[in-house]
Amino acid sequence: MDAKNLAVRIARAPSGLPQRSDFVLVEEPMPVPAEGEVLFRAIYMSLDPSMRRKLPGPEGAPVPLGGTQQIGDLMIAGVPPPARGYMGGLVGQVVESRHADFVQGDLVQGGCWWQTFQSVPGHSLEKLAPGTSLSEALGLLGQHGFVAWCGMRNIGAARPGETVVVSAAGGAIGMIAGQLAKADGARVIGIASGDKVQYVVDELGFDACIDRHAEDVRVALDRLCPDGIDVYFDNVGGDVMLAAYDRMTDFGRIVICGMASEYNAVELPFGASLRPVLRKRLRIEGFVVYDHYEDQFADFQAEMRALIAAGKMKYRIEVIDGFEHAPDALARLLEGRNKGKMIVQLGSDPTD
Amino acid sequence: MDAKNLAVRIARAPSGLPQRSDFVLVEEPMPVPAEGEVLFRAIYMSLDPSMRRKLPGPEGAPVPLGGTQQIGDLMIAGVPPPARGYMGGLVGQVVESRHADFVQGDLVQGGCWWQTFQSVPGHSLEKLAPGTSLSEALGLLGQHGFVAWCGMRNIGAARPGETVVVSAAGGAIGMIAGQLAKADGARVIGIASGDKVQYVVDELGFDACIDRHAEDVRVALDRLCPDGIDVYFDNVGGDVMLAAYDRMTDFGRIVICGMASEYNAVELPFGASLRPVLRKRLRIEGFVVYDHYEDQFADFQAEMRALIAAGKMKYRIEVIDGFEHAPDALARLLEGRNKGKMIVQLGSDPTD
Repeated sequence: MDAKNLAVRIARAPSGLPQRSDFVLVEEPMPVPAEGEVLFRAIYMSLDPSMRRKLPGPEGAPVPLGGTQQIGDLMIAGVPPPARGYMGGLVGQVVESRHADFVQGDLVQGGCWWQTFQSVPGHSLEKLAPGTSLSEALGLLGQHGFVAWCGMRNIGAARPGETVVVSAAGGAIGMIAGQLAKADGARVIGIASGDKVQYVVDELGFDACIDRHAEDVRVALDRLCPDGIDVYFDNVGGDVMLAAYDRMTDFGRIVICGMASEYNAVELPFGASLRPVLRKRLRIEGFVVYDHYEDQFADFQAEMRALIAAGKMKYRIEVIDGFEHAPDALARLLEGRNKGKMIVQLGSDPTD
Repeated sequence: MDAKNLAVRIARAPSGLPQRSDFVLVEEPMPVPAEGEVLFRAIYMSLDPSMRRKLPGPEGAPVPLGGTQQIGDLMIAGVPPPARGYMGGLVGQVVESRHADFVQGDLVQGGCWWQTFQSVPGHSLEKLAPGTSLSEALGLLGQHGFVAWCGMRNIGAARPGETVVVSAAGGAIGMIAGQLAKADGARVIGIASGDKVQYVVDELGFDACIDRHAEDVRVALDRLCPDGIDVYFDNVGGDVMLAAYDRMTDFGRIVICGMASEYNAVELPFGASLRPVLRKRLRIEGFVVYDHYEDQFADFQAEMRALIAAGKMKYRIEVIDGFEHAPDALARLLEGRNKGKMIVQLGSDPTD
């Protein structure tokens, strides 16, 4: 057994893109598992743009510019114990077990630091299912696959014939998100750069892929999505996200999965940032009532009548007398100087 | 019967807040119903901030600054036929029917112009349910009630004990949205102005109401929602919306129902506007995968294994050799210069 326990610690807060000198490679003592713990040897570690988010920011910088980690900390891979093992960013093999569920040689997922040997509570490791390769466990069958699947299944929900756009299409999540949408019968357009552009089309079977360095993304989206975008699976945020946002169809779904373009930001973007939508798992949804009459109006009326009967629904109406006063009343309404629901009376009310 | 058929037409494109002189009051000929049509007398018309959105903008102004109406057009109330009657913004009484479903004296909803007498296809009128007053049909039991209900039921979905904030709380929709949330057991904070502030608390039973003219909305929200906002029901957009947005809890829901503060805008706000979210009924939703493992990871793996077996799921991995190269690889990943999913290999892979 290789007795060296290499690890990476944070040397200083990066400014913009992290540099090699922001990190320090160290040798740590070999951990000794306590009762209930398992010592494992890391074999693969997933590298993820979101690691950038956790690094410390310039002194005094607010979240999200500064992450939760401090200078001197071990770099994090995934979510540390006591989180369950599938939240860890490492796969490896058990070296020594003091937990009943594991024996030496078991292939596991878990951990959470940039460190070769880690001793963690047994309940924060997961055994790999038989027949799963280590790289599958970190990729297609692991967190990245699951991220893509959750976003497409729970939010994107592409239907056959719809147009789906995936940013960072050649990245860990984008590759899978696009193929899931293809499997659902959608037309899928990627946005990528470098040699990933060709790969996404030739190997992954996307219908097209925009090279964001070679052409204007807005122009390319207009050409490739003449009827608009039904689902936009966003891994990058920033200008690419705005380009897609401006081209959504009615009832379009924007899956906010990542904001890689913003993780290196040294200042917050002007205006509303969508980063809280990701961090807080927000849903921002618009609706137009006319879409719902057919399905829900009867339910609504039944519930509203019951609330009115129970004295739980009050309402204030300001009656405007005739069309003569309606334009002024509209202006007052737009200024918020109305007293309640405004209606214009145009004749006598037989129900009054 | 009052033989005058008064109507309001658009005299010119308003700049900012509409003025009386932007409209002209005219007398139109009395309509004569054709076969299948119904002539009705308008009794109440709903006045809505969204009417502003339909007015023409400055010459050459793009949607949404300019609406779809032209100078000289009749002002619209609701959605014109052939839309169903519940989309009309008028209630009234049938004067003459040439449609088998209606007789003189029937109380109806429909129409769609600022006009006293209208002759419309019978299928674009709705008869009022027995016992419904005309003002209820335009308010609690009509479109405004339904708007509030759709937004709260389909998107907001407030649970008991949650904190709900409603802007334009004393307006046609806000009044109802807040009371629906109260009926669901939520704590409800309104944002309003003028004497509506007191009304919302004293009469409608909201837990509190912020006077947006008397205090800083952000400071007031911090005081009244110390644990954040679970549901924000937005009728106004603009700064008030941003104040609430910044204070959402995890898994918060923002219901984009109206943007009254922006309807008078003479230029588009800088940066991303949320107006398309309303107009196009978009859903923008963020998620964090860790929330879904417990419920969905098994489903995901089953589906992914099937896709892999069917040859429908490919994946490209770029393997980085050891921690020494991991910091550089992270920077390359953040620049998008990776070749696919990046993983760092830290030891030999027994599954390889």
